[in-house]
This record gives sequence, structure tokens and C-alpha cells, in this order.
Amino acid sequence: MKALVYNGPRDVSIENVPDARIERPTDILVKITATNICGSDLHMYEGRTSAPRGLVFGHENLGEVVEVGPAVDRVKVGDRVCLPFNIGCGFCKNCEAGFTGFCLTANPGSAGAAYGYAEMGPYRGGQAEYLRVPYGDFNSLVLPPDAEDKELDYVMLADIFPTGWHAVELSGMQPGESVVIYGAGPVGLMAALSATIRGASQVIVVDRHPDRLRLAASIGAIVVDDSKGDHVGQILELTGGGADRGCECVGYQCHDHHGHEHPNATMNDLVASVRATGGLGIIGVFVPEDPQSADELARQGQIAFDLGQFWFKGQFMRTGQADVKRYNRRLAELIRHGRAKPSFIVSHQLKLEQAPEAYRHFDERENGWTKVVLRPAA
Amino acid sequence: MKALVYNGPRDVSIENVPDARIERPTDILVKITATNICGSDLHMYEGRTSAPRGLVFGHENLGEVVEVGPAVDRVKVGDRVCLPFNIGCGFCKNCEAGFTGFCLTANPGSAGAAYGYAEMGPYRGGQAEYLRVPYGDFNSLVLPPDAEDKELDYVMLADIFPTGWHAVELSGMQPGESVVIYGAGPVGLMAALSATIRGASQVIVVDRHPDRLRLAASIGAIVVDDSKGDHVGQILELTGGGADRGCECVGYQCHDHHGHEHPNATMNDLVASVRATGGLGIIGVFVPEDPQSADELARQGQIAFDLGQFWFKGQFMRTGQADVKRYNRRLAELIRHGRAKPSFIVSHQLKLEQAPEAYRHFDERENGWTKVVLRPAA
Amino acid sequence: MKALVYNGPRDVSIENVPDARIERPTDILVKITATNICGSDLHMYEGRTSAPRGLVFGHENLGEVVEVGPAVDRVKVGDRVCLPFNIGCGFCKNCEAGFTGFCLTANPGSAGAAYGYAEMGPYRGGQAEYLRVPYGDFNSLVLPPDAEDKELDYVMLADIFPTGWHAVELSGMQPGESVVIYGAGPVGLMAALSATIRGASQVIVVDRHPDRLRLAASIGAIVVDDSKGDHVGQILELTGGGADRGCECVGYQCHDHHGHEHPNATMNDLVASVRATGGLGIIGVFVPEDPQSADELARQGQIAFDLGQFWFKGQFMRTGQADVKRYNRRLAELIRHGRAKPSFIVSHQLKLEQAPEAYRHFDERENGWTKVVLRPAA
Amino acid sequence: MKALVYNGPRDVSIENVPDARIERPTDILVKITATNICGSDLHMYEGRTSAPRGLVFGHENLGEVVEVGPAVDRVKVGDRVCLPFNIGCGFCKNCEAGFTGFCLTANPGSAGAAYGYAEMGPYRGGQAEYLRVPYGDFNSLVLPPDAEDKELDYVMLADIFPTGWHAVELSGMQPGESVVIYGAGPVGLMAALSATIRGASQVIVVDRHPDRLRLAASIGAIVVDDSKGDHVGQILELTGGGADRGCECVGYQCHDHHGHEHPNATMNDLVASVRATGGLGIIGVFVPEDPQSADELARQGQIAFDLGQFWFKGQFMRTGQADVKRYNRRLAELIRHGRAKPSFIVSHQLKLEQAPEAYRHFDERENGWTKVVLRPAA
Repeated sequence: MKALVYNGPRDVSIENVPDARIERPTDILVKITATNICGSDLHMYEGRTSAPRGLVFGHENLGEVVEVGPAVDRVKVGDRVCLPFNIGCGFCKNCEAGFTGFCLTANPGSAGAAYGYAEMGPYRGGQAEYLRVPYGDFNSLVLPPDAEDKELDYVMLADIFPTGWHAVELSGMQPGESVVIYGAGPVGLMAALSATIRGASQVIVVDRHPDRLRLAASIGAIVVDDSKGDHVGQILELTGGGADRGCECVGYQCHDHHGHEHPNATMNDLVASVRATGGLGIIGVFVPEDPQSADELARQGQIAFDLGQFWFKGQFMRTGQADVKRYNRRLAELIRHGRAKPSFIVSHQLKLEQAPEAYRHFDERENGWTKVVLRPAA
Repeated sequence: MKALVYNGPRDVSIENVPDARIERPTDILVKITATNICGSDLHMYEGRTSAPRGLVFGHENLGEVVEVGPAVDRVKVGDRVCLPFNIGCGFCKNCEAGFTGFCLTANPGSAGAAYGYAEMGPYRGGQAEYLRVPYGDFNSLVLPPDAEDKELDYVMLADIFPTGWHAVELSGMQPGESVVIYGAGPVGLMAALSATIRGASQVIVVDRHPDRLRLAASIGAIVVDDSKGDHVGQILELTGGGADRGCECVGYQCHDHHGHEHPNATMNDLVASVRATGGLGIIGVFVPEDPQSADELARQGQIAFDLGQFWFKGQFMRTGQADVKRYNRRLAELIRHGRAKPSFIVSHQLKLEQAPEAYRHFDERENGWTKVVLRPAA
Repeated sequence: MKALVYNGPRDVSIENVPDARIERPTDILVKITATNICGSDLHMYEGRTSAPRGLVFGHENLGEVVEVGPAVDRVKVGDRVCLPFNIGCGFCKNCEAGFTGFCLTANPGSAGAAYGYAEMGPYRGGQAEYLRVPYGDFNSLVLPPDAEDKELDYVMLADIFPTGWHAVELSGMQPGESVVIYGAGPVGLMAALSATIRGASQVIVVDRHPDRLRLAASIGAIVVDDSKGDHVGQILELTGGGADRGCECVGYQCHDHHGHEHPNATMNDLVASVRATGGLGIIGVFVPEDPQSADELARQGQIAFDLGQFWFKGQFMRTGQADVKRYNRRLAELIRHGRAKPSFIVSHQLKLEQAPEAYRHFDERENGWTKVVLRPAA
Repeated sequence: MKALVYNGPRDVSIENVPDARIERPTDILVKITATNICGSDLHMYEGRTSAPRGLVFGHENLGEVVEVGPAVDRVKVGDRVCLPFNIGCGFCKNCEAGFTGFCLTANPGSAGAAYGYAEMGPYRGGQAEYLRVPYGDFNSLVLPPDAEDKELDYVMLADIFPTGWHAVELSGMQPGESVVIYGAGPVGLMAALSATIRGASQVIVVDRHPDRLRLAASIGAIVVDDSKGDHVGQILELTGGGADRGCECVGYQCHDHHGHEHPNATMNDLVASVRATGGLGIIGVFVPEDPQSADELARQGQIAFDLGQFWFKGQFMRTGQADVKRYNRRLAELIRHGRAKPSFIVSHQLKLEQAPEAYRHFDERENGWTKVVLRPAA
């Protein structure tokens, strides 16, 4: 089968690889009809992770079930399924508690497995024609009858819609509160959408890319361009002294608008932008080590953090990748009943063959390349 | 009246000061019968804060009501009351939400007021014969009939028992979980007591002072001496890979057993000691600036924090001083019905006149000086 | 001053009564500019409560502060304030825990006080020119600068918007879930609005009055007319086997569409309409005794409840009047930022003098009389 | 193999039945070493359910794994496992949300499956030599190395310890609160133990059997004998006006001390015994119909419930059978670390052959027959 393969920093290509197939009785096999390129794929693409050459990327996957193992009870051939990016077993201590992003079984020795991702276990990604899904009954969201019509919406349930939702959840936002979101990439935009659906009184989005700010404004967010003046000051003024909640949707490569990385910039801005007793949801990726960083602390996975201010304000922060299964059923209901339309961020629908080119554009943050959906089955 | 007055670094004395009195119709006046020296008083005593000369210390106060203002409805003359160290108004946004430690009224321009404390508003402390209590109906816990018999227990409700309890609460501990507590000072010991009462399966306490470790062991905690070998490794082994929860009860002056300050040591040890998806409760004081620190980051209120590891493990941390009123009624019930006896940490009961000497011993962390209760009315 | 006075069953009139005035140092005095007639006023109006003759009705009040007592610190003369219908002290066990609807101080011997309401303490209502507000700092929501422009929205914060919100809160609804609301009176409509703001995937409203159903549909709810066929069956079909949550917004006088009271009808329909493990929020008033009921159980405050079915499904129910202060700040933010417009239910704005007539129409549930706002200061 | 078989009301016997065996690739087979007789088995034994003749009873099971299906990944032959009484699939909407007691897969058409129980699916019970366990990885708690030594403690994790714990959880009890528990059968005693571990300030247990009251007192509970005078009045006095929380551990056959059933007695006593804003946890079994009841309402699954009082007090109630997996890992930690010893209720350890006799004694509530453990492998 064909798949997108990583050959080294900024080098990916479409190659023939051995077919995906049922390996365990609990597996299912899915023909991929939609699979997204994710901002976190770019960390690997840029060579800033330990991703091995030969890895097939792709953890935002949706498709049709074409085969099920003999121990699969629920999922049927022909079902259309959206696949959470995290792979869970369903029976370890973490999965049982709903922390399916930190499964102790699927990636032994670590906590958390995913498709086609560095350090996340021996699983190929779905930027390919077919995908093997372990523990298929547990790791599939079977979609309702409108699955085909709303495929561009439902595919967002694999990762970024639940991830944006998780950012808001982690921040502890209550309806009627204000929230500031740093970063208007796809995840930040999904956080803004989520906060809106959940009844925020004010959703403030901070970024500098015009296309992204425009999308944020299109769903009713207040936008702040941090390349123009004192963004923290603006937030304090808009909220009368600090937002109730803040979301970090940028991650460890955060940089100023001149392109210089300041790994602690967003975190400390959040502490300053949120009021005393407020909460922070940190969903942008931070890594235990970043050997290629120019920043000495960052190389060992540290930042110079304003703990004094944070403590004095009695704030909290919650972190970590989203446990997709905690939310995906309810978010699917929102899509199904017309209450959420996350596909508003899609800028490109491309063939699998066009993926290498798409990586190039997306990595450059070219204006207008906000979200790419690949259609391998097309 | 007589009161303990701060004259400058490591210099306090008993002086005659103007009598405390009713100033507002909602005030009450309390004759102090028990008032503790707190570990956080030592930050001021050592000159590591902006406390002004002339300040009367003392925020852990208990006594008898001797006068009430004309707008006081509940508290009566003769009531024995324990006074939360935080002063709240009861009607601001934060007080209404239970965040009485972050009152927006009592210390205008900041969030949070207290008796006799740097940066916490214009209130004198209770290491004195009398104390003026603002918003007396809101800021008093009226004690049950056994108040005199158990005064040494009830006085712990002013601060350290709720503060230790808060550390456990912030960590998110559920009954049946394991918890590691860094620091066996009075607050750490109260956290250990709290975790035990709340049904922890394992309570692990890390410190190096023999008297403190002995007290921790006396209530059933497992003790780890961090002056002897790999304490993180020991915790990982005891808990099979990481405690479920962790509590920081040390604060910004944390140092190794040679006395060198490493402001990030406890925080990063906690990240390493707690399992993926676990929670941290940070109750040790951290400050927005510490001009006298030898550490460059600490001078501006920062630490080099292992955010990469913290994020990768999906941990959370919650911080801030305890909102005493959130807990003090229930903790009083535990004392009253014999389920909690926090006075086990009291090492000395002294006259007010002996306070300067007590400060000296306590500041030296002399063996056996774990907790001093002053008795001004004696 | 002028006020609406209860003279006996279905007999109210505008009378001159002694002026409201400051009685305690913590009181404030408010000139009423908007005050609503509430569905629960009708229980008194119809003589189905112990309300004494001479009582001034009115617990949904908004106005301008014209005088403050000497112990009032926050509220200023000239402030525009919305007054929660429940009167709390702010310092009893219940108020401290946020249960301001169950204050132990303001109505001694009971739990909960209110303006102008049977069994809720010695307080006159606000269907009058002026209102005395006890514990003024605690019992006022000071409104933002747009208070006059949006007075019809803000006045809903005194009771029915928070009460509808509370119904949804009590049901445990999570965003993305479905909810069924029995009763489309003003509170039921506010519950529907609240569920929508909070991100319900489906909001289903059950009633039989065309004007009410039309209003429910106008905010996007699915409406079910229970005078036409099997309403429980319709709900099960719409939700694929049962709504996730249910709200009771009818109360003890619930009756079929022929007008016969069946006090257990709504409760048991809810048990049947909600799925296993779902939750019920019961906000319609039920009373400990109803001497005039035709139903033998109802006379002693009982209903024949489907406990077997309820238990077998593992459902829960939470009840009681809304603690308005738990929500009113956040709901005010929603109004201020244009995210909520609860005034859509207002059908009539009348002078105080027209109140008796309004009671007559409202009590008849005349088509089009959904919500009456009185303007005493007009 | 040998098993206890139901032949009709009050008639059980040990019979040879077809061997339990692996039927699905996800099954495991367990040799039973300890299996309890449960109070709810008596409902079937007495003929008060639809249990068919030939049913093998037994849902409180512990044993050794002797065979695993080819799709089982975690559990190994030789593991000692305790088996939650509820059978879940792990991937349905309810299981995913932690409601494993309401699995939608294992008992199609209903919500919730169990071993050897009326209406709970086609599964044989474990009062037998061997037991087939569906979805073995999900439905087993693998025990620590001290499993054999503490077998009498660990076997309580199959049902009654988590069930008692659930009663306390449902009531919303916070540490430091008071709780009243109606019923001191095994589940009520486990609720009392749970409340104690969780830091209740007062645990009050109501029953009338001297042996049960003695056991309650042995773990520090305050006991109230409801055959002697006004038990509700005693509770109000002990708690100063009402317990914070209440637990129903009796169920639908509740009766006075003369033996007359009053199906609503315990529920309404709880409403009266608990303070305003308090919570109730209802864990005693209630059934949708009880054709053999003398009470007309009970026959259709209803009780005459004090809804007026309940609503006026703003109480809540949560119900349903325990989702054992929500708690069993943490409770196992408490046993392992010596913090819980639920075996204190065991009165008899018997051979499987003695089971019919044990049923007879237990059904008579004979003094001293509090809990029977059968040892089929002995």
C-alpha cells in the first residue's frame, strides 16, 4: 500500500510499504478516507524529535472498516469510524480512569501510545491507504448515518477538536467566564470554538497570522495581534484585570514575531494574563528534552517559569495530551445535531500524493494553509 | 497593650503598642489566649520580605470575644473563636466563590489579606494581648463547648491544619491513593495528618530533621530521609513507579542538607516522584521576587522548572495559600469528635514575653522546636 | 409608599403601606425600577400556601440604591442593583458553602429566606416603590454600565434565569448531552436557554401552551406537545432511548391537559424519559403539605414515586430552590457581552397599578401572558 | 463441576452442572477459592424475583486463573483475581464513562449485567468450582502478592466493600461530615467502614440486630437501635439538627421490628434524618415491580415518598448498584497497606456443600450469621 514516509528532516515522500493487516484478534483494519496533517507532525518533520526514518506519519484518521479480528464484538465491517489519536487498551489503571492518553499497556515502559508518532509506540500512522487499529472495539468511534456528509467535521474528532476542548476543560472554565487562548493554529481555533460552545462570556485569541486571526474572529472571538504592542495589557483591559482562564495552544517552539524562540514566553504571559485564582490549560506540546534548542534550559526540558507570581495568584495549571475518548462521543453529538462545525478551519483537501508538498507549505506557516485534509481513498 | 514587634532582620521584641479596638461596626475585639509562631513568620523575621519595622506579627490566633461592633449579628461577647489567618469580606467575587484567601476588598489593589503579614494589608497580628477582627461575623469560627480543653488543637485551625489539608486537596488525592509530602515542618506534618484522615493508602514524608521525621512516623507515615541517598528513587520503589499525588510544603527557601538554596529542587523532585496523570498541591510559599536570593532566576521570582517532564506526564499543579474557611468547620468537627488531634506537633507553650527567644530557637530549626504556642492571656 | 398587597385567595390590590427604610446598619434601601410577577407568586395568589393577608409580594427585584446603612462597604448610593430572591447572611454554614438559598440566619428556625414569600421570613416583597435589602453588601449584584439599556435582561437575574440555570446544573448536564425539560413556563424557558448556552446537543421542551412552545422553538429547542399523544415515546425516539438529563420545571400543581392534578405525573415521566445513569434537576416547587389538594398523598407532601425504576436505572435527582448568588455574576457577564438575552420571554411591561389585573391574566395562563414586568418607578 | 443451584423459593442444592469453559477469545476461566453469599441472593432465594429455576447463584467471587482466551493480554494463568460482580464490556457508552454497572453490551436490551443474578444476563454465578469470566482483561482485578493471606479481605472487593463505599460516595460525604447509615447488614457495615476511612466526623448506624450493632460499634460507629424509641429524634440530637449525609442500605423489603414491610419507611426516615442541602446515597435494592408485595404501590415499584420535604430541604439522592471498577483498585491498596480490614464481618467460612444450610440460617437473619464465605476449592 501507499503511505507517507519520513526520510529525515524536512524530507517526506509517498512510498510503497507492506500492507496494514489484522495482527491480533482484537484488531480492526480501516481503509482511510480522511487523514489530517497536524501541527505536531511538524515537530517530527523538522527533525526536532527522535522519530526514526521510515516512520509513517498520521494520527488524525477516519475511514471505513474493512476487516475485524475474531475477538471484535461491536465494530462491524462497513462501519465508518473516527479513530482517536491515542491508542488505549481499556483495562489498565489509566484507561480505566479515563486517561486513555496515558495507557500503560499499548506502549510498554511509557504512558501513552499513538499512531505514527515519535516515542509513542510501534504503531504506523494513517497517512496511508490502510490502518491497523489495535483494540478495535475500544479505539473506534462508530459514526452516525451522516458520517459521509460531514466527514470533514467528524475527522476533527480524531485529535484537534477534542484537544482544543481539553484545553478549555483543563483550564476549569465555567460557562459565563472569560478565557484567553494563546495560539490560533488549528488547536487554538478548536479551543476557541469549544469555549464558545461551552458558554464563555468572552473568548480572546492571541496570534499574529492574519488568516488565523480572521478564522478566530469568524466564530465570534475577540482577536489580539501580539505582533502589535502590549498584548497582555490589552487582555487585562478587556477583562477588567485578567481573564478567568487561559489556554496554551502553542508549545515548546513558541517564538516572538521575529522568529526567535522563547520557550517560556507563552507560559509566563498566561500567568500575567489570568486573574488570581484562575486556571490554565496547557495543551501545546512541551518535551522532556530538546537537544537542538538554542536555549540552555530548553535543552533539558526546562523553562524559567514565574512560579512566584503563579503561586501568589493561587492559580493552577493542568496539562497533557487530550484523552480523546473522554469527549468524542459528546462532540460527535454536537456535530450531528448541527451545534458544532469544526471543519471551518479546513483550507485544503488533497490527495495522498500531494502530502509532501502540503508539508512544505504548512511548515512554512504560509498564509492560507491552516488545515490540510488528505483523502487517500479518493 | 503588649505585642511582639518586628524591629528588623532577626530582631523582634515585646513592646507596648496602642490598644486594639473596634474601628468599624462589623469589627469584633478578641482577647488572645493562644497564638502560634508560624514558619512563614520566619520569612519576615529573617528579613526576606518587605515587612515594615514596627509590624506586629501573628496570624494563627484564638481567643475570647470581649466586644462586638453594632453590626455584628452572630458572634457574642464571651464566645471563644478561632480566627482564620486570611481576612475576607464575604461579598467580593473571590470570597463568594470560597476563595477567602484572595479577598478583593480587605487588601485593595491585591488579592488576599492577613493579620500581621507583609504585603497582606494594614492589619496587626495577634502575637499580642488583643486583636481587632474585621468583618467579625465572617472571620470567626465560633468554637464548641470543649474549646478550652482542646485549645491546642483548635488553635491549629487558624492556619496550619487547614493549610496542610489544602495541600492534600490541591493535589487531588482520593482515598486509597498514595501521597508523597516534601517537608515535615508543621504544615507538612498537618498535610500528613490530613492525608491519613482522608484515607490515603500510603503517606510518605520527606525531610531530614530527626525530630520532624519522628513526629511523621508517630502518625503512621512512611519517612524518607533525603540527607541519606536517593530519595526520589526510594519513593518510586515504595509506590511502584510514582506516588499518585505530591505536596510541596517547603517553599522558596528550599535547600539541600548542606544549607545551599536550590529554589527549584522540591518542585522538580515532585514532578519526578509522582506518576503520570498525578497531581501536585503546592502550599509552600513562593514569592514574585526575592531580591536577596543568590539565585539569579529566584531574584525575579522564577525557577528552572521541568515543564517538559511535567507536561509529558500529564500532571497538574494547584497552588496558593489556603482558604481557611473552606475547611475549618469540618476540621473542627473532627477535633470535637476525637477524630483529629493536630496538637501532637506542639513542642512549646510559652508566655508572650518569651516570644523573642522562641523566634531565635525556631529560626535555627533547633531539634525539638517544632511548634510554639504563645499564651498572651496566661 | 405604594405596594401590591395580598388580601386573600385571588385577591390582590395596590395599597399604601409604611415606607421601606434602613433598619439595620448592614441594610440598603432600593427604589424598584423593575419587578416581575413569578409563577410561584401564583401559588400564594391562589391561596395554596400559608401566605398571610397583608403580605407584599415580589421577589424578582431590580432598582437603584437610594440609601445605605453605616456598615455597608461596597454598595453605593446610585448603584443599580439586581437582588437575588433569596436573602442570605453570608456567614452561616450554608451561605459559606454557597447554599445561599438555605441561609440559617435570615429566617430563624428554617433554612432559606426570601422577599415577600410564604414561610420565607418576615421580609416584604418588591412589588412596591421601595425595598429594604438586608445584608446589602451580600445581597446585591451591582450591575455594569449598561444596566439601564438591558434592564429587562438583568431583572431576570433575580430569580428565573438563575433558577432555570440551576435546573440544568442540578441535572448534571455536560456540554454535548441531550436534555428534556418538562414545563415551558418562564423557568422552563430559562432552563432551555441555559442548556443551549451550555452546549446541549439537543434541548427538548415539553408543554402544551402554544405561546410557550413557540418561545421555546424560537431559541432552537425541539418542542413536544404533551396534549397530543405519547410524549415519553417521542422523547425516547428523539434521543435514541432516553435523554441524558431531565429538568422538572412544573412543580406540585402539575396537571394533565384537562386540568386534573396528578402530582406525580412529571416526576415519573422524567424517570421514564431519561436514560440509565442520567440525572434529574427538580426545580419546580414541591411542598411539605398541601392541605387543599384532592390527592390524599399530596395533602401530606408525598407522591407515588417510581423509585424502583429510578433505582434500577441508577439515576439521581437533585432539588431545591436556586442559590442565585452561585450563578448571577457569570450570567450577568453573558448578558453584558451579548451571549444571553433572557428578556425574550417578556410579554408585558406594566405599571405597578396594573399588577392586580396582570395577576388575573397570568393566573389564567392566558395565551400570550408569558412574563410580566412591573415598573413601579415609571 | 459442582455448583449451588436454585430450585425454587427457599430451595437450593449442590448439583453437578456442565463445566464452565472458555467460550469467547476474550474470556478467562477461574477456579473459585472464595465466594460469598450476599444479602441480595436472598431476594432470589425467597422467590421475590424472576430468577429461573436452575440458576447458579454467586456474584462475589475470587479465585485463581486456570485458562485464558487467545485475545487476553494482561491476565495470566496463575494470577489470583477478584471479580467485580458487574460484567462490563469496557467500550460501550456507559462503561467508558465508568458506569460499568450499567453496561449496554453484556446484557442486551438492558443496562447492567452480573453473575448468577435475575434480570442481569445469561451468566452463571460463582458459587461453584469454576467460573467463566467474559472480557477477562476488563473484568478482573489482579491481586498483589499477599492475595492468599488476605483472601477474606480481598473477596469483599467483588461487591460489598465497593458497594458500601459507593453508598458513601453517592451521598456526597466530605471528610469531617456526619453520616447516618440505615441498615447494618454487610453492606451497611461496609458503608460504615468506608465512611470511617474517608474521615467522617460521626458515623451513625441504625439497625436492631444485636450482632450487627455490635460489629458497627467495633469499628467506632455510634449505634442507634430503631426497635427502641424515636430513632430519627436521636439522630437529630446527635448531629445538632440532622446528619450531613445519609445512606440507604436496606432496600425494598424494609420492615419494622415486628416484621411488617413498609417500603417507604427507610427513605422517608432518611429525608427526616438529614439536614437541608444534605445528600442521600441509595444502595439498597429497589425493584421496578414486586408482584408479591402486600403494598399496593410497591407492587408497581412505587413508594409514597416525602418529595415535599425532600425538595423543601434541597436534598439530593443518587442511586444504583455500585460500579465496582470505579473503586476496587484503590480499595485493594487500602487492604494491602493495612488501612482497611473488611473481613471483620465474616462470621462463617464453609464448604460449598454447606451452602444450602448457610442460606437457611442467613435468610432467617439468625444472630451471628452476618457474612458467609464459601470455599469451593477447599
